[in-house]
Amino acid sequence: MQKIYNPEKNTWADILERPTQTVADIENVVLDVFNDVKTNGDDAIKQYTEKFDKVSLDSILVSEEELENAKQLVSQELKDAIVLAKSNIEAFHAVQKTDKVSLETTKGVNCWQEKRPIQKVGLYIPGGTAPLFSTILMLAVPANIAGCNEIVLCSPPNKEGKINPAILFTANLCGVTKIFKVGGIQAIAGMTFGTNTIPQVYKIFGPGNQFVTVAKQLATKFGVAIDMPAGPSELLVVADDTANPSFVASDLLSQAEHGKDSQVILVSTSKKLIEQVEIEVENQCNLLPRKEIAEAAIANSKLIYIESDQEALELINEYGPEHFIVCVEDEDFYIDNIMNAGSVFIGNYTPESAGDYASGTNHTLPTNGYAKQYSGVNLDSFMKSMTFQKLSAEGIKNIGNAIEIMADAEGLQAHKNAVTLRLKSLSDIT
Amino acid sequence: MQKIYNPEKNTWADILERPTQTVADIENVVLDVFNDVKTNGDDAIKQYTEKFDKVSLDSILVSEEELENAKQLVSQELKDAIVLAKSNIEAFHAVQKTDKVSLETTKGVNCWQEKRPIQKVGLYIPGGTAPLFSTILMLAVPANIAGCNEIVLCSPPNKEGKINPAILFTANLCGVTKIFKVGGIQAIAGMTFGTNTIPQVYKIFGPGNQFVTVAKQLATKFGVAIDMPAGPSELLVVADDTANPSFVASDLLSQAEHGKDSQVILVSTSKKLIEQVEIEVENQCNLLPRKEIAEAAIANSKLIYIESDQEALELINEYGPEHFIVCVEDEDFYIDNIMNAGSVFIGNYTPESAGDYASGTNHTLPTNGYAKQYSGVNLDSFMKSMTFQKLSAEGIKNIGNAIEIMADAEGLQAHKNAVTLRLKSLSDIT
Repeated sequence: MQKIYNPEKNTWADILERPTQTVADIENVVLDVFNDVKTNGDDAIKQYTEKFDKVSLDSILVSEEELENAKQLVSQELKDAIVLAKSNIEAFHAVQKTDKVSLETTKGVNCWQEKRPIQKVGLYIPGGTAPLFSTILMLAVPANIAGCNEIVLCSPPNKEGKINPAILFTANLCGVTKIFKVGGIQAIAGMTFGTNTIPQVYKIFGPGNQFVTVAKQLATKFGVAIDMPAGPSELLVVADDTANPSFVASDLLSQAEHGKDSQVILVSTSKKLIEQVEIEVENQCNLLPRKEIAEAAIANSKLIYIESDQEALELINEYGPEHFIVCVEDEDFYIDNIMNAGSVFIGNYTPESAGDYASGTNHTLPTNGYAKQYSGVNLDSFMKSMTFQKLSAEGIKNIGNAIEIMADAEGLQAHKNAVTLRLKSLSDIT
Repeated sequence: MQKIYNPEKNTWADILERPTQTVADIENVVLDVFNDVKTNGDDAIKQYTEKFDKVSLDSILVSEEELENAKQLVSQELKDAIVLAKSNIEAFHAVQKTDKVSLETTKGVNCWQEKRPIQKVGLYIPGGTAPLFSTILMLAVPANIAGCNEIVLCSPPNKEGKINPAILFTANLCGVTKIFKVGGIQAIAGMTFGTNTIPQVYKIFGPGNQFVTVAKQLATKFGVAIDMPAGPSELLVVADDTANPSFVASDLLSQAEHGKDSQVILVSTSKKLIEQVEIEVENQCNLLPRKEIAEAAIANSKLIYIESDQEALELINEYGPEHFIVCVEDEDFYIDNIMNAGSVFIGNYTPESAGDYASGTNHTLPTNGYAKQYSGVNLDSFMKSMTFQKLSAEGIKNIGNAIEIMADAEGLQAHKNAVTLRLKSLSDIT
């Protein structure tokens, strides 16, 4: 790990630079698959599944029987854990519901705002070694609370044409409408255009490799919304001597094991803590099954000593971490003043893992500094807000003249006329 | 206007198709300007201003003196109208503020969600014949309520190097931090990368021509968020015999005068009303200064007769109009069941112009069917929601085991270990 002491402000940008991804070269591959799926629908999907997932499937829709089997295959212990996590996630997302907001802005001018569900949403869950059933909890649970009609899930099949039972169990538990054994670019293309089998959706959620990331970006060009732009996962911990170095090290490593491009930063006002954490990281890392990945990520990581909390805060806001752990004596200083972070974890007993799985908060969060302008996934991600207004005769009389003057000044006579006609009809009456 | 009677459902997609825009050919132009501004900053800005706006400027930052002058140049009548509109917009966006949402999901597991302002936002206001000062109200007012630190506005100068005084007056009134005389692609590029003069922003809002639209789309590739994807403005009116045909016609025309590619649709369960509106549109259109534009848009527009309200509703939800006017006897049916619309205007005395200018609702709305998945601009557009959590020793004991089991099942041992270490330390104590 790189240790950096009291970096000058003009070096912050370099120090905080994230691992770069070049995606331009895969954009053409993605575009080809999109065009093919748009034109050839299910046939193209089938063909790419054979090519990329090495399996030929008669039906890509997961059957009731497969769901029933999955239920048998998941251990009771894991089922219980998933149910507990679901209950917390459900509770925390349910309290995010907002009431209709209503105001009579001027006498006779009633305006209100209401949120309504996005009717069709698509969830993408990657395959590979780690079956990310926890991400299904994070996406399908709020989609259900929001009231989305159709919740489609795509996940790649393995070479036997199967999806991990924990994924099927969780998807079924969380009310996913349809599960498809389709992965990668072709899954995103399928949900973007719709095929005879896969419904077209209005918004696509979920993580994926760089192909999926580019595919989601391309989907936006075809009118589909996405949860947020993606980047490698990252964690920043601010800690002082009140922090437990062994806990801090375990949190840094839990982020580092995600991928070689994960970024891990410790900011501290204590040189002693930095030394302790460094030793702990080394010791703990050696015991991990994903040691190789964690080591590579740790090699790029930084331990930054900064003298004052104020300057540390500025640096952290400049970085805008996805996950932000606060283990300091004066935690309120950071809690109150952090402006850019995806999710904040406070104190010695709040590992990032808690939010990753079971505390109730969402783990789909803005990476890559996007915390400066994007929210993590929350209940509102599955809804859109609409406004309504109703003016009475009195209402249009009260604001009509102002509208006429403004429309006139903008050179929009028909806009003015729509008001003038109404005002005239009212003066004719009275 | 095209009249269509009881269209079959399988023809809806064709009937409701929007005017298409091809942007691929201008993407290269936009990319060139972006690269130039990224590399050469203010010099490039100056050069493109000379090229596109035909004016050479010593300073692109609007001075205090220019703001003072603008105040003198705007009529008192217009100032009063703008102040009235601002007051309504302010009131309606202020009530959209949400409190911190807080929940103890499990004993000892405290989670909360808070919204914090996006610190730096950029507003783009087009130049041209119509000075869209009303859009400044719609963007700067909520940005201020949200608490954005830096509110930058770019608008192109005219050939005399000036910006319309109504724009300057409104921007100054609404607390815009800095106003720049920069337009088009170079304005979006300037706010995306920042120059010595123009601050880099985190999110860009506002309308523009197709160059600006493509530039905003490109900005997202460089990590900047945008309000929403753009398309031509549109209006759908549903009306029956309780509607005033002259009012309906005036609303259709107020949309049609925006541009030749504006789309205007009337859906009605009354053939009589359709005939009446058609005549009224013709009569009123002849009186408009922007007659030529309105006529072109009207030529593409549709009058659709549908027998039942239920089917009309389905068609409207399929279309997802930006503006949706409801002038029918049973208005609650449409209000309660509309799922996809940007903003809804109810009754004979609620012209679209009301929401365009002064009722209090926002006029920056999703076009092109994006109402299916995007909100119009609202207070939350200028904020992002963050989550926080703090677990006590009791909290981690209560959910720790579930986290361990789930992390283990996902093959993430370091995630598990972060919990195991904490649980162990607690069992060592007790």
